Parts: sequence; structure tokens; C-alpha cells
Amino acid sequence: MAWREGEKVFKDPVHGYIYVHDPLIWDLINTREMQRLRRIRQLGTAYLTYPGGEHSRFSHALGVYEVLRQMLSHFARNGYDWPHQYDRLVTVSGLLHDIGHAPFSHALEPIFGAHHERWSQRIILDPHTEVHRVLAQVSEDFPRQVAEVLAKRHPSRLVVSMVSGQLDADRLDYLMRDSLFTGVDYGQFDLARILRILVPWKDRLVVKRSGLHTVEAYLLARYFMYWQVYFHPVCRAAEIGLKKVLLRAQDLSRASAPPEVPHPALRRLLAMEPLSVADYLELDDFVVLTAVANWRHHPDPILSDLARRLLDRRLLKYREYPSGDPYRLRDIEATIAEAGFDPRYYCEVDESGTVYYDYYLGEESADDEEGALFLWDPEEGRLTEMSRLSQPIRAIARERQVERRLYLPEEVLESPQWGARIRSLTAAGGLRAPGFLSSVEDDEADG
Amino acid sequence: MAWREGEKVFKDPVHGYIYVHDPLIWDLINTREMQRLRRIRQLGTAYLTYPGGEHSRFSHALGVYEVLRQMLSHFARNGYDWPHQYDRLVTVSGLLHDIGHAPFSHALEPIFGAHHERWSQRIILDPHTEVHRVLAQVSEDFPRQVAEVLAKRHPSRLVVSMVSGQLDADRLDYLMRDSLFTGVDYGQFDLARILRILVPWKDRLVVKRSGLHTVEAYLLARYFMYWQVYFHPVCRAAEIGLKKVLLRAQDLSRASAPPEVPHPALRRLLAMEPLSVADYLELDDFVVLTAVANWRHHPDPILSDLARRLLDRRLLKYREYPSGDPYRLRDIEATIAEAGFDPRYYCEVDESGTVYYDYYLGEESADDEEGALFLWDPEEGRLTEMSRLSQPIRAIARERQVERRLYLPEEVLESPQWGARIRSLTAAGGLRAPGFLSSVEDDEADG
Amino acid sequence: MAWREGEKVFKDPVHGYIYVHDPLIWDLINTREMQRLRRIRQLGTAYLTYPGGEHSRFSHALGVYEVLRQMLSHFARNGYDWPHQYDRLVTVSGLLHDIGHAPFSHALEPIFGAHHERWSQRIILDPHTEVHRVLAQVSEDFPRQVAEVLAKRHPSRLVVSMVSGQLDADRLDYLMRDSLFTGVDYGQFDLARILRILVPWKDRLVVKRSGLHTVEAYLLARYFMYWQVYFHPVCRAAEIGLKKVLLRAQDLSRASAPPEVPHPALRRLLAMEPLSVADYLELDDFVVLTAVANWRHHPDPILSDLARRLLDRRLLKYREYPSGDPYRLRDIEATIAEAGFDPRYYCEVDESGTVYYDYYLGEESADDEEGALFLWDPEEGRLTEMSRLSQPIRAIARERQVERRLYLPEEVLESPQWGARIRSLTAAGGLRAPGFLSSVEDDEADG
Amino acid sequence: MAWREGEKVFKDPVHGYIYVHDPLIWDLINTREMQRLRRIRQLGTAYLTYPGGEHSRFSHALGVYEVLRQMLSHFARNGYDWPHQYDRLVTVSGLLHDIGHAPFSHALEPIFGAHHERWSQRIILDPHTEVHRVLAQVSEDFPRQVAEVLAKRHPSRLVVSMVSGQLDADRLDYLMRDSLFTGVDYGQFDLARILRILVPWKDRLVVKRSGLHTVEAYLLARYFMYWQVYFHPVCRAAEIGLKKVLLRAQDLSRASAPPEVPHPALRRLLAMEPLSVADYLELDDFVVLTAVANWRHHPDPILSDLARRLLDRRLLKYREYPSGDPYRLRDIEATIAEAGFDPRYYCEVDESGTVYYDYYLGEESADDEEGALFLWDPEEGRLTEMSRLSQPIRAIARERQVERRLYLPEEVLESPQWGARIRSLTAAGGLRAPGFLSSVEDDEADG
Repeated sequence: MAWREGEKVFKDPVHGYIYVHDPLIWDLINTREMQRLRRIRQLGTAYLTYPGGEHSRFSHALGVYEVLRQMLSHFARNGYDWPHQYDRLVTVSGLLHDIGHAPFSHALEPIFGAHHERWSQRIILDPHTEVHRVLAQVSEDFPRQVAEVLAKRHPSRLVVSMVSGQLDADRLDYLMRDSLFTGVDYGQFDLARILRILVPWKDRLVVKRSGLHTVEAYLLARYFMYWQVYFHPVCRAAEIGLKKVLLRAQDLSRASAPPEVPHPALRRLLAMEPLSVADYLELDDFVVLTAVANWRHHPDPILSDLARRLLDRRLLKYREYPSGDPYRLRDIEATIAEAGFDPRYYCEVDESGTVYYDYYLGEESADDEEGALFLWDPEEGRLTEMSRLSQPIRAIARERQVERRLYLPEEVLESPQWGARIRSLTAAGGLRAPGFLSSVEDDEADG
Repeated sequence: MAWREGEKVFKDPVHGYIYVHDPLIWDLINTREMQRLRRIRQLGTAYLTYPGGEHSRFSHALGVYEVLRQMLSHFARNGYDWPHQYDRLVTVSGLLHDIGHAPFSHALEPIFGAHHERWSQRIILDPHTEVHRVLAQVSEDFPRQVAEVLAKRHPSRLVVSMVSGQLDADRLDYLMRDSLFTGVDYGQFDLARILRILVPWKDRLVVKRSGLHTVEAYLLARYFMYWQVYFHPVCRAAEIGLKKVLLRAQDLSRASAPPEVPHPALRRLLAMEPLSVADYLELDDFVVLTAVANWRHHPDPILSDLARRLLDRRLLKYREYPSGDPYRLRDIEATIAEAGFDPRYYCEVDESGTVYYDYYLGEESADDEEGALFLWDPEEGRLTEMSRLSQPIRAIARERQVERRLYLPEEVLESPQWGARIRSLTAAGGLRAPGFLSSVEDDEADG
Repeated sequence: MAWREGEKVFKDPVHGYIYVHDPLIWDLINTREMQRLRRIRQLGTAYLTYPGGEHSRFSHALGVYEVLRQMLSHFARNGYDWPHQYDRLVTVSGLLHDIGHAPFSHALEPIFGAHHERWSQRIILDPHTEVHRVLAQVSEDFPRQVAEVLAKRHPSRLVVSMVSGQLDADRLDYLMRDSLFTGVDYGQFDLARILRILVPWKDRLVVKRSGLHTVEAYLLARYFMYWQVYFHPVCRAAEIGLKKVLLRAQDLSRASAPPEVPHPALRRLLAMEPLSVADYLELDDFVVLTAVANWRHHPDPILSDLARRLLDRRLLKYREYPSGDPYRLRDIEATIAEAGFDPRYYCEVDESGTVYYDYYLGEESADDEEGALFLWDPEEGRLTEMSRLSQPIRAIARERQVERRLYLPEEVLESPQWGARIRSLTAAGGLRAPGFLSSVEDDEADG
Repeated sequence: MAWREGEKVFKDPVHGYIYVHDPLIWDLINTREMQRLRRIRQLGTAYLTYPGGEHSRFSHALGVYEVLRQMLSHFARNGYDWPHQYDRLVTVSGLLHDIGHAPFSHALEPIFGAHHERWSQRIILDPHTEVHRVLAQVSEDFPRQVAEVLAKRHPSRLVVSMVSGQLDADRLDYLMRDSLFTGVDYGQFDLARILRILVPWKDRLVVKRSGLHTVEAYLLARYFMYWQVYFHPVCRAAEIGLKKVLLRAQDLSRASAPPEVPHPALRRLLAMEPLSVADYLELDDFVVLTAVANWRHHPDPILSDLARRLLDRRLLKYREYPSGDPYRLRDIEATIAEAGFDPRYYCEVDESGTVYYDYYLGEESADDEEGALFLWDPEEGRLTEMSRLSQPIRAIARERQVERRLYLPEEVLESPQWGARIRSLTAAGGLRAPGFLSSVEDDEADG
């Protein structure tokens, strides 16, 4: 498509409009590899819990680009000291940062050992992709520069941190976007204000002295979105459901009777054969879910049962399971097997937890910790690590809050015969400290 | 899944929460047929124009239910004269109103002669569907009652008009939902206020005297959504793109060399064989788009080219084409053929237009016109048809505004050889009256 | 206050942030005359109907400035042909456009013959005001230029139309602001989109070809806000209540016994003595309402009664009164007098109505009509007047829709003795055509 | 005003609509004492910092009522164990909770020793007020019951905690309202969700087990609103400005030359004479600000200067002043005096700080701590105090974070002669722990 003069816009429910002034960005958006992201949902199977969460990685990629465009425009308007030769590198890297994402990557990657970051680089460096060809028009070396930013190996730490850092455009967009589409309000924060407090300073992005509470609010928004969406126990159940189907299909593929798979690339993936870039780019949510839909009628009773459970949303149920004791888990699995379900496909211990803010507590001069945010005092020209100044940030920082849950079939849990045994094996002593507390409303989004 | 006490909720970006108090509703939501709607997008291919418009018919169905639940609660709270024996019939019919929708129905139905309304009734009446079984628990006759409401043949005109009428729950939800997800603001209106002005009166839903401007605003929101989204020329281009792929696949299926189709139900559809209810329920967006993705590599050059154009979003371009003159169209098609494109697959004249409000201008006593809205004066106990009282409603009523556009490949339109000829064949005399005016920004959502 | 480097911002619920880069704007905001606008409510007495409508002309003035700042930034970014020497003149004129507003101007101006437009010019040209002194720092002539823009006499028609025209920054801000604060949704529209379709062209502001529906939506938002807020019958009742108090105070001031007035400028105003600029700038809502509060205990029974009715929100009630027949009005007034109320203070016929869009229907070449909006076709370089292309705009254009209501004390209307007579004198034949229909919900905001 | 059938509504930007079904509520809203709250701004002088923050205590009172109405409706719908004889007592107490508020109470009360809580009770119990008369229609004893709720002495701890507690309707409404009108997003949270997690249980309001993160978000919203609005240094400067004017007026009133005061009630207040209920009800923002406006021209040079500074928004400037050292303060005051300003009127040390959540750390059984929130586990029937389960709540609980600032005239701070001395007297060691850190953007809302 030929570039026409003037700015182009996309309507977007998060940012209102996404403005494109650079023909390079336009050409990248229209590559086949970017268009593939329209067929990969940002939140994987979470739409089974939050019906509105059906948005794709494509609109997120546009959003990341837009946030970066606004950042650069803010730097320019305020005359900040910023290396303008990197303008395009920043916006392009933001747009392409998820180009290598697999469908349902959280469910797929652990099974197949794929890593979307590495695929992103392969796609960008492969001379046969459209993305590569568009990038190479800037300069022969440009694809490599973009790949370096995505690999966090680019010499400019500043450029890297704008795309992947503690307060990067990726997180800023996905928190707001996931929040809007799921209808969970917690992820909303004041983007205009965030942009106003970020300053490029000596090869890093720092926070103006007055931005303390703004950053607190951002980090807490992230904290809430984790517990309300990303770690939501029903969201995890859906993901586990998909993982189990794929696991069974993989097991069958390796055995004598590979299941019918409607797509050669997926067939290769299930058989653990190496994938070319072209193969990989064939994979999307539609290919995977169509395979699952076909398996509904597969002769293997486990595969067809697992497929039906996922498609008809009869997900595994959970009990909190703080212990993690492997002996006890063996007893649980034995019970499930006695009840007639193969625990390999019908039982999972799921651990949710992350580090919300990874700070540095060393010498004040050692300001180079990657995961930390620094407050910058223009009068004194000094950086102070954020958690030293904020009790709420200290509260959610560093420590890993973990929630451990046991998933198993409702038939087992509700059975008079087996349910009591399971309940006694997972019993815990009342309400526990956060991270061990059920973080969601039992009656919500739980159909 | 067993029903547990208390209300259930879904988080929803449009209504905040969707409240479920009735176990019947809960059971219906969890049927396989309702879950299928998660895999059918509300706006079909419109997401290619509005990246956010990726929401499914499932969340819309929940929204229609919620609007009806609120209506009934409002009737009860205000002590309106309403037949409470129909409460469940109304909410259930709203929830199930789209149960028979095909994937991409606007593109599919004209080609295959399917009608989603008729499929909805078949699905509800078929004793083998889960939906039927849940409904039959209420009473043996209940499935038939629901089917009658969807067919607009139920004896209570009031019940029918709440589900399918000029101001029904279906429209109320989809205008707000499509508006939110696409990011186009025009569809927003004040739902709480709409609920406050609707009154059941003598077997019809009428508008309280004070609600004139509220209804005006609602009808105009609809008018704007049509021109900004449903008739958006790029949205139409995407739909045409899908139609052309399916047309080619159908032509090939009827000919000697049927294309590989990854799903038996779709294969049968393309071959024009009759579909059972079970077949039909296998169809969803994923099945269709996976087939299209496979065709990308099909040996038939037209099929593979059309598939790639759609997937990579290289859509047909358009010129306004007010004339509709068949002689001229023949010349246009000849030009396209000369340029090397088969006009059957690479040319389309598209007419957009609807009647925004279909009013009745006859005797004042004849108040039974279906498409009309009536204002009710409680003091005088008299109905007055809305457009008699409102200039803006009169302005958009009855008359069908039509926009006619010619779609063809960009290669032809931009070619020095053929482009000028096409432009002269589609030339018109400057700006024309509405309906003939390009209704969108040329530079928007047009990638 | 000294100007410090960098941009200044105000948090604003309508625009998010209001950005100030120009020290001149900052200095003007901090003048005494601008700060006075904080004590004058944008909607006068409308807060008695819409409790949230308590915002001041000050925040509106900032909003108008911000809309113009965004317009200019949009012109610059897109390289439009715009005379940049007028940048400051535009933003300054927008900021100051209401500087001469009286408190409750709709109630006060008819009684005292003041005109806020003329006072704006006097204030700007008076060398003793702070505003004048700040403006004169730009150039000796600058105050005069600003006054000319406000008087619509500036040679650049383009500059004038951005500040006061059919689609000016004043209207754009007040519709959104009044809508947000009252909670009435109708006034919302897509400002970003409006900015995208406006183009300076040959000394006028025209609308890009693609902007037809955007302008339709804007004009209809205005139409709805008029009927839901500005013409709301209870809003009018409150305004009439204040007018009547002031009328009685004026009558007493002219007679032997002037009421105690807590402020010399108001005392002079009531006595119809000429006011100096300094006097005028003393007037604000607080001065007026404190006077009214004092009059609650005034020995004159009419004055104290009228004051109490207003302060305690016991407003006059209304009947629709389509006739306007002066003979009948005489009978009505006689009835009110018989009931013991002086009709001069306890009766009013109120006419609401405006022209929503004043278009020109003459020769197509005659494109200079002031109130008209023109669509601009860049390919053909031709202007077309909007209502020629839009049925909804034609529907609300030119014709003046009028609603006529009779206001009188509830005691009379509800009295068994007089109420029936009043009702028969104001009886009309059922629902009438728009403009004569009660445009609001009877039970809303009506306490 | 007579009550008419059906529900009444107010449009409200926070809650959409405020529904009134109970004629008693309607009659109370229309009393003179409630209408007085329209003339008292919720945020006092904060509008000088946040231009949108001009809303009155009247709309807040309606909002508190609406939140309580929704709470009761939620209790009823879910069949919670709640003493329905208290329904009216709860909604009425919520509506009237601020009836005794003085204008600018934060500035006025410390000077004059008034307490709005006590005035609320006096007004409700005084048989001459309209509010009393309406309440007494319910039962002779009803006014006393309402007064007891407001005094937190009512026997039902549950009723009291819904109106004044850690998670009461008052806070829920003002956080959302102040947030919306100022444009500061931090105060927004999910009210529907809060309502869903609150359960009346054994005479207290407890939080359902699943509500932990919801309460965290609410408490953090409060924390942010304190630092961004209530403790904003420029908001404090405006309040100090008003306090200083009133202090000077009071000093003059006690001395030989009382200033002219336009209102007898205010005159009495300044002279420290006792006020009757009738006097007190005369006081509102308009009376106070009109007095200040008059003093602009008062012969006392300090009074007129202080009045002008406030009206024209030339506020005192601040330096952080962590020390609080009284010796140093003496030096500061001496410097200010040398510079020609009386420190009594031109200098203030302001301490901001509150306890965001006051928890109880004792025995688990001792569940009666007033300021604490308890999580309720329905399975185990046990309460757990919130901060035991939440790190973010622990982080902001109990400890009082204090920010101490020194306010003085800009002329002194910017003077070459005195500024340096002041800066050295207020110097501190770089960035300090939270509570001592400047919590706002220096360049925001700071004109």
C-alpha cells in the first residue's frame, strides 16, 4: 500500500487515537508478520473468565508504539537531552516487541520449549520476512539494531529501558488495555502524568522528584492486575485446561497414533520437530483452537474429553494448597487415579506469584540495578532508589508472594467418596498471610 | 456445574457487572451452544478496520440479558403493569437470541443461503442440544415458547418487542458495546435514562411523554454507528474480501477440484450439502479462518491470492459509484479483466444503507405499526407516533439513504494504464447529498 | 508571580490537563480580573436543578484556551496554511472572552441593560486593569487587537471564527464542560476528531470532506444540551426566581425605601447609577447571593418572600402555555392577583428557543454567510454549505423551535379555588409538535 | 412541595442518578438547612489549586444518601441479616451527616472553636429548624435517634459504622466526588465491588473473604487523595491565606476598631459572641467571601493586603521544613519581621499528615477496635483484621506520615537580602523518607 501524505490514525479505545506520521511504521503495520498478531489474543484463555478480554496482541502492539511516540514527543517539547538518532529505533522496537509471540504462549511455551523473545529476533533477522525487508530499507544494519533492543543487548540502556524496563511502554499499555477490556478497573492510571514525570538522564530513564506518588500508583495498579486477572484462579484453570489438551496431543504424537492435526506447522510442533520461521509464522490462536475443536471427536477418550472440557468451559476446580508437600501430592494423585482420572492430565499444582518491583538496597552510589526505579532530584543531581522513599512500594517489592493451588476435576472434588479425602489432604489453618489468601471473589467470573 | 447460592456476576466493560440470580440463566450460559458464541466475533471482519473491535457474540449475549434484567427490575420497582409470568421467558430469549449465528454471517449467509434466525429456532427445538435440555427442565413447552419469541410469533407483542423491536435490548447492548470496543464514541447513550422512560402499556412498550429527547439521542446514536462502523467503506472491503475467498472456494468445491478444507462441516457447507444442527454448531470464526489460512498455499492461484489479501490485509480499494448504471459496470468489469483480474472475484458494487426508523404516518388511531415508537401521555392516555413530534427523527426516518461504492484491486486503480479509465467511469459531479457522500475520514482506519 | 521554566499544567476534569507554555498566558490567568471569574458560575442558577453544575467561568476560560492551543498545535503539525503571527492573539482572546461577564448574567442583564461583551472590551482597554497592563507588555496595540477579536471586528475572519463562530472553542468547551458537571451525557462528543477535521482555508475555518458526521454529532449535542439543560423548565424557574428578587429590589431602590445592600457596586446597580470598570469588577455571584440572603429578613414582605423562595428552592411552577394570547394572559394575571400574589413578581411567561444552526440557502458561490459551516472538498477546491448535505442538520437548522411556559406560585396552581381556572386558561390540545412538547422528564431534577 | 407518586431522581456526575423513593428523604432535601449546603463548597479553598473542585456539600450529601440506599438494597437482595427497622435511620443520617458544617470549616473552626459535629446535632434537635420538623413527623423520638447516629452514640454499632467508620458511605462518596471534580484520577475505585464485599455480621460491617484486594485498593485511593489533594501544598497555602484574613479580622474585632462585616452572624462570630442556631445557619461561603471582598478596601493595611492576596491568588510560598525546631522558627520569624511582614499574619508552619488506617494488633478475639476492618471467613465464622493479611495495608497503616512546611511571602523568599537566610534556616539533607518528601509536582497547579 502506497503511503499518502499527512498523518494516519487508528481509533483505539485505550488511547483514543493512534497517530502514525512515519511511513516506516505504516509499512511495518501492514506486514504479514504484524497482521498475524491479530489472530493471537493478548490474554490467551483469560476470555473464558473475563468475557471482554478478547483483544489481540495486534492492538497492544499499536498501543506500545503510541506510548513511545508520546514519550518522544514529550521529550522533544520539553527540550530534554535525548539522542534523537534513536527516535525511529524506539518506536519500531516497541511496535515489533511481540512479533515472535506464539499463540497461547503461557500454555504452549512450557510444553514445547519455545521462547517468544528468541523467535522475535529470528523473525526480524530472517531476510525472507516482510518485516525484515521493510526494516532493511532504513539501512542494512537496522534489523540487527532492532533485534538487539528486543534482546536487551543494545548499547543504549536508555533505549532498551523504554521498551523493556520497570516502567516501559509495554507494561504501560498492557495494564491499561487489559484493564479496559476485562472491565477490571484496577489497571487504570494517569498516563499523561506518567509521561510528565519521566526524564531521560545519563543513559537511563529516571523519575522526577515530584513523581513519587505517580509511580506508587502505577506499581500498585500492576500489583492489583496480577491478582485480579493474571493470577485469577479461574484464568489459571483455563490455561491448565489448554495445557493438558496439548500435552495429551503431544503424548499421542510421540506414540504410535498421532492425532489428526489440521495444520502442518502445528503437526510438526506436536511431534517436537524443529520449526522454520515460515512454519512458526503459520501458528496462531485459530490454528490451535481449530485443532482442539477437531479433537472433540477424536477416538482417544482422554484427548476428546479434555478438548470438550476446554471448549464447553468445564474447567478443573481448585483448592488452595499452601503446603506443596510432595508426599501429600502423591496421595492426592493416587486418589484422583482411584476416582478414574489419569493425574497426568487431570491434576495440577499451580503456583502464582511474581516480584512486583525488584529494588536495590545496596550503596546509594550503585545506581545501576536493572529492575529498580530512581527518583531524580534536579537540584541535587542525585538519584534515590524508589522503595527507600515509599512505604507502599517497599510493601510489594522484592518479596515474592506466592499462591499455590491444586486443580482437579469437579467430579472428584464433589464426589461423596473422594471429595472428603481431597479436602482433608488440602486442609489449611484458616486465613493466611497475603499471597496465600484467595485473592478473588469466589462467586465472580466463575461460571 | 452445580449452582451455588447467592448471585453470580461477570465483570463487563459495558455494564460494569452482569448479575445472574436465576440458576436457569447460569445453566444456559454454560451450555456448549452458548460457549460456541465465544468463537464468533460480533463485528465479523470489522477488526481489520477498528483494531479494538474483536469482541464476541458471547459477551453481547450476556449484555442483552443484563439489559432485560434491568428493564424487568425497573418495571417491578415502579409497579408497572407487566405480566410477571413472562419474566424468565424475556431474559432467556434475550440471552439466546443469537444462538444460531453463523461465523461472519454477513459474508457467509448470502453465499450459502443460511439464515441465523431459522438456525436459532432449530437449535432451541432440537432435543439433542444442551440448550434444549436445559430449557425443557422449566416445562416441556418452554423451548417452543422461546423459539416463538425469537421468531416474533409469540402472542405477547410486548415480550417480542423487548427482544426484537425498534428499541430492544439487542440494539441497546450492541450499540454501546460496538462503540466501546471500536473506540468510536458515537454509540454511547444514557442506558439508565432509556430504562426510565420505557413503560409497558397495553401489550406494547411505549415511551413516557418526557422521553422524547432521550429517544432522539438513541436513534441518532444508531444513525452514527451505521455510518462510522457498520457501513465504513474499509469494513465493507474486508467483508467483501472474505466473501470473495469463500465464493472461490465454493466454485472450486462445485467443480472438479475441491480445496482441502480442515473441517467436515465447512467442507459440507462449501459443497452446498445440507447441514445438520450438529454440523452447524461446529462452525465458528476459527474454523473459517483456519481454512483461509490453509488456502494461502493452495495450488489454485486465485484462491491463494484472495486468501493472502485477506490475511495480510491488502483489501480491495473503492471509488464512490453513485450511478449503478449496468452498462457502465460492464465496461468497468471489462477493464478489470483486461488488467488481468477476474471480475467475479476482484470487483464488487457495494450498496450500504438502511432505514434508521420506520414510522407510520397513517391514522392516529392505527397504532399497530411494528417499526414505530410511540410517545405515551399518561394524562390523556393517548399514543403519538414519535416522528410526528421530532424534526431530527423525521430527518432520518423512512427514507433509505444509500451509498454505492465500487471495489476493485489497488493495482488496477493505481495503474497508469487502467486507473484513469476506471476514474472516468466512476466520475460524479462533486459533493452529493447525504447517503452519497463519503461518510468517513479518508485517512482514518484505512491501512 | 515570576515565571519559571518549563510547562505549567492545570488538572482539569474535561481536558485532563491544561498546558501553559507561554508566560503571557500564565500572567493573564493570575490577574485579578481573571480570578474574579472563579466567583461567577458558568451556569448561573442551574445548580438548583443539576446539583453538580456548580463550576465557574474560570475553569471554562482555561478550557477555551486549551482547545485553541490544541487547534493551533494541530495546524502546525499538519503544515496547514495558517498565519502564525496570530497564534498569541487567538489563545489570549479565547482565555479572555468572558472577562466581562456579570454574575448571573441571564437574570441580571435584561434588568439592568448590561452587556457582557461590551464590558469585556471596556475591561481590556482600561489602562488601570491588570489584564490591560499584562497585554500592553506585548505591544501598545495588543489590548486593542484582543478587544477587536472579542467584538468580532478584527480583520482576520479566521481568528474571529475560532473564538466566536458556529464551531468555536467557546462552544466546544462549554458543551463538554456543562455536560460533565451536570451529569447530562448528551453534550459529549469527540474533540480529538473535531480538531482533525477543521482546516483553515482562505480566511475561514472549514470542515474537511470526511467530517460531515462529526459535525452532525456536534450540532446535535448542542441541540440536546439546550433542551436538557439550558431550556430545562426548572432551570428557567430558578432564573426567573432570581430575576424577580432583583426586580423587586430595583423597584424598592427607585422608590423611597431602598433595601440594605451589602456592597456599594450592587447598590449602585440597583439604583440604576452608572458603574465604573472598578465597580463592575466588584460584582460576582457571592455579592449578589449575600444580598439575597440578607433580604430574607427585609421588612418588605415581597422582597423577603422572594428571597426565601429562591434560597430554599421553592420555585415557581409551570404549565405549558402554547398560546401566548395576551387577552388570556390578562385573565391569568387577574387570577393570580385575586389569589393574593402580585403578578409583576409572581408570574412570568417564558419563551425558550434558539436557532441551532443558521445556514445559508442562496447561491452556492455566496459562501460568506456568518452562521454557516462549509464542507471543503480538497480535490475540487469547492465549499458546500453543510445543511445541503445532511438531513439531520437541515432538521434542526434555521427554524426556531419555541417552547412557551407560564410560571406561577405552586400555591395558586394547587389551590382548589384558583388552580382549575389556571388550568383551563392554559389548556392545550394534547401533545404538540416539537418545540411545544415538554422536553424533560417531569419527575426529574424537579424537587 | 407536595410529594408526587413514583421515584424522583437527580442527575449526578458521580453516581449517574440519585434515586429517591422515600418522601421523607425528599422533604429533608428541600429543607432550608439542607439547601444551605449548596452554598458551602466541599473542598473549601481547594478550587484555587484545582479549578474544577468547586462542588458543594449539598451534592456530596445526596451522594452519601445514594451510597447508603444502594448498600441497603444490596443487603435486601442478598437476604443478609440486617435490622430493617433501621433502613430510614441510615439513609436519613447519611443525608444529614454534614448539616452542621461551617463554611470553610478547616480554616474557620480552629480560629473560632466551632465543631461541625456538635452543630449538626444542635440543628437536628432544635425544634425551630425545618429539618427537625420533618424528622419529628416520623416519630417524636426520631430526631434524637438521628443525632445519636451522628454522635456515634447510637446503640447499633452497625448503623453508626455505615455512616461514620473506616469504610463508610461518607468516605466512599467524597473520594469519588473529589476525584472526579478535581480531575485527579487517584480517588476512583469500584463502588459496585465495594458494595458486593460488605456484609452486616453480628452488629458490625465486615468484609467478605474475597474482598481483600478491593479494600486494599480503596485504602490506597484514600492515601493518594490525601497527598494529591487534601495535603497538596498549594491547597494548604490557600487555606492558610483564608485563616490569616480571618485572624486579622478577629484581632481587629476584639480591638477598638472592628471591621465592617456585611452580615450580623459573621460579625458576631468574629467578635467571639455566642451564636444561636439561627445565626449559625446564616453562615455560608458567600457570606465569608463577600466579607473578604469588602475588606479589600479596608483602611487596615494588613487586613486589606491579606484579603487581596487571597482573592487575587497571590498565596504564601513554602519551603519544606522537616525540623520543626522552635529555636530555628524564632529566627525565621525574626527574619520575616525584619523584611517588613508581621509573622503572626505572614508566616505559618503547616503539618500535614493523617493515619490512613488505624488497625488493631492485639488478640485475635478482640475484634472491637473502632478503626479496624475485619475480613470474614464464612466457612470458619472468624474475623481477621485486614492489615494482618495485606502488606500494602500494613505499609500505610498506623504510622502517621507527616509533612511539615514553612509558608511565607514570596517577597521574602525571593528577596536577595532575606531569601538566602530563610533557605539556610530551612535546609534539609536531600530527599527524605516519605511523609517528608514533597508529594506533588512542583510545576503543577501551582500558579
